[in-house]
Amino acid sequence: MRIGIDAMGGDHAPDAPVSGAVMAMKELPASVRLVLIGDRDQILTVLKSKGADSSQFDIVHTTEVIGMGEHPTKAYTQKPNSTISLGFNMLKEGTLDAFASSGNTGAMLVGCMFTIKTIEGVQRPCITSILPKFKGGFGIILDVGTNADCKPELLYQFAVLGSLYFKNVYKNDSPKVGLLNIGEEAEKGNLLSQAAHVLMSDSKVINFIGNVEGRDFFNEKADIIVCDGFTGNVVLKEAESIYYLIKKRGIKDDYFERFNYENYGGTPVLGVNANVIIGHGISNDIASKNMILLSKNVTEARLSEKIREAFKAPMGVPAGDTGGLR
Amino acid sequence: MRIGIDAMGGDHAPDAPVSGAVMAMKELPASVRLVLIGDRDQILTVLKSKGADSSQFDIVHTTEVIGMGEHPTKAYTQKPNSTISLGFNMLKEGTLDAFASSGNTGAMLVGCMFTIKTIEGVQRPCITSILPKFKGGFGIILDVGTNADCKPELLYQFAVLGSLYFKNVYKNDSPKVGLLNIGEEAEKGNLLSQAAHVLMSDSKVINFIGNVEGRDFFNEKADIIVCDGFTGNVVLKEAESIYYLIKKRGIKDDYFERFNYENYGGTPVLGVNANVIIGHGISNDIASKNMILLSKNVTEARLSEKIREAFKAPMGVPAGDTGGLR
Repeated sequence: MRIGIDAMGGDHAPDAPVSGAVMAMKELPASVRLVLIGDRDQILTVLKSKGADSSQFDIVHTTEVIGMGEHPTKAYTQKPNSTISLGFNMLKEGTLDAFASSGNTGAMLVGCMFTIKTIEGVQRPCITSILPKFKGGFGIILDVGTNADCKPELLYQFAVLGSLYFKNVYKNDSPKVGLLNIGEEAEKGNLLSQAAHVLMSDSKVINFIGNVEGRDFFNEKADIIVCDGFTGNVVLKEAESIYYLIKKRGIKDDYFERFNYENYGGTPVLGVNANVIIGHGISNDIASKNMILLSKNVTEARLSEKIREAFKAPMGVPAGDTGGLR
Repeated sequence: MRIGIDAMGGDHAPDAPVSGAVMAMKELPASVRLVLIGDRDQILTVLKSKGADSSQFDIVHTTEVIGMGEHPTKAYTQKPNSTISLGFNMLKEGTLDAFASSGNTGAMLVGCMFTIKTIEGVQRPCITSILPKFKGGFGIILDVGTNADCKPELLYQFAVLGSLYFKNVYKNDSPKVGLLNIGEEAEKGNLLSQAAHVLMSDSKVINFIGNVEGRDFFNEKADIIVCDGFTGNVVLKEAESIYYLIKKRGIKDDYFERFNYENYGGTPVLGVNANVIIGHGISNDIASKNMILLSKNVTEARLSEKIREAFKAPMGVPAGDTGGLR
């Protein structure tokens, strides 16, 4: 298995991604080869500072980088030798099994669209975030920002994509799907959630448990919470900001420590034709390590392939085929 | 000033609202008369248990109550002698200057529509919630649940209503209005927020500071955060649930204690032809007391009248008249 890593991606590159790769190597089986994409000299300097054996890694040299603030499409097309562009080209050629970056999220999504493309039948790819559950374990919420405007069918697809992710990577056979809403009753909510509720209720391929509310993110009600990318992004940033304030108040608490993004590796892009993992832009070495471990798990689970197989079956409502679920 | 209180409203009625009224009386000037609406015997029992002089209060007797789980419109029309119905009738007749309840929120809104009605020019009334700021003081967010589906013009009106509330009740001459979005740049967001951004930018009657994100609820960026009622409701319940978990973890912290709903009295219904205040359904005595004090402040500020005056001026975009703002 070959995992490509954007060595120049994120606020703390190349230190964080390269150090993270060194840390990850200690936990990965010998069958995994990490491919560091970026400035060779800078990569070697970090590897040396960490006392790592550079022969353990492949390095693909380039000096072109897409900055965090650059316009995604423009930068991607104008920088064909950027770390992100090279990563996607290698994914497409099949010389990588996964590609991970904490760099410009927009450019990562553009890379998906321009090279590996969306899986047939998937309307729009989406991204997820972790919800640490109060009683242990965690859930996910999706979409968290890729799709600000959604139609009911799209929310339904998020439910299917999230279920396939949870089932295959987190080994939960029948994850509970909740629809984010502002009341428990089916008829509550805005036009979008009301229509999505009907689609989800009629579906045989997801384990739909009904509406959940803003108070249910951290309880056991649902494993997967589905919402439009606007609401999901607000929810995620609110949780991050409260965690930040908890730290700022000097509060140390085991549960709230699980809000720390470092513990998780980011999110796969769900619904594209290869394993692509996006890390948090502020990723440090630990977060980068976890991004790489997540990449390995996603690849091992053949997630992208599993989603492709599931979507070959009619994903209409109600879908007759179980699409690998339940 | 006569403030009507639904003595039977909320999960802990009549104890909480009546005890709250006794506590409020100790802080209110002699010019304020509290009118307790509900079962006379039950009210007298609570007053006696608190050692209060019942002659300090007016009591309007009725045994009919709209339950928390009842269908708002049905219950309101079928129970003309309910505490909520009586309160609105008295408001309409002018025998009350304000009416406050922690009872069925939906029935309270139906009462507004059926009796005092929406102020001319206001498309839809809305409700707010408090955001405790990390550096002290607080902001508000609106709408938080009355309007799940919004048009851009409605968000703009929320901005105006929120500004009038903040200016007149919280004595802030030029409160900063932020539009909740998923990026700082004007062109970010969903179709709704993009269009609302244009309306707010063009307005001369609000102090629009641009987009704010889910990470900005508790910082100084904006005094008023505007969003649709779906997103606002989710944001509010997420904050409440994290506060609940903080307590459950046994964490004691001065800042997070300010997340306790008890400290605030609820919200006025903004945009209707009288002063109506809605408390939290779970209100205890302290929360009830604060609901009554808020009712007094809102009435003293002549908020409903101020909003009516402001909306007499054209509130179109850009509005030439300052509508009492800035």
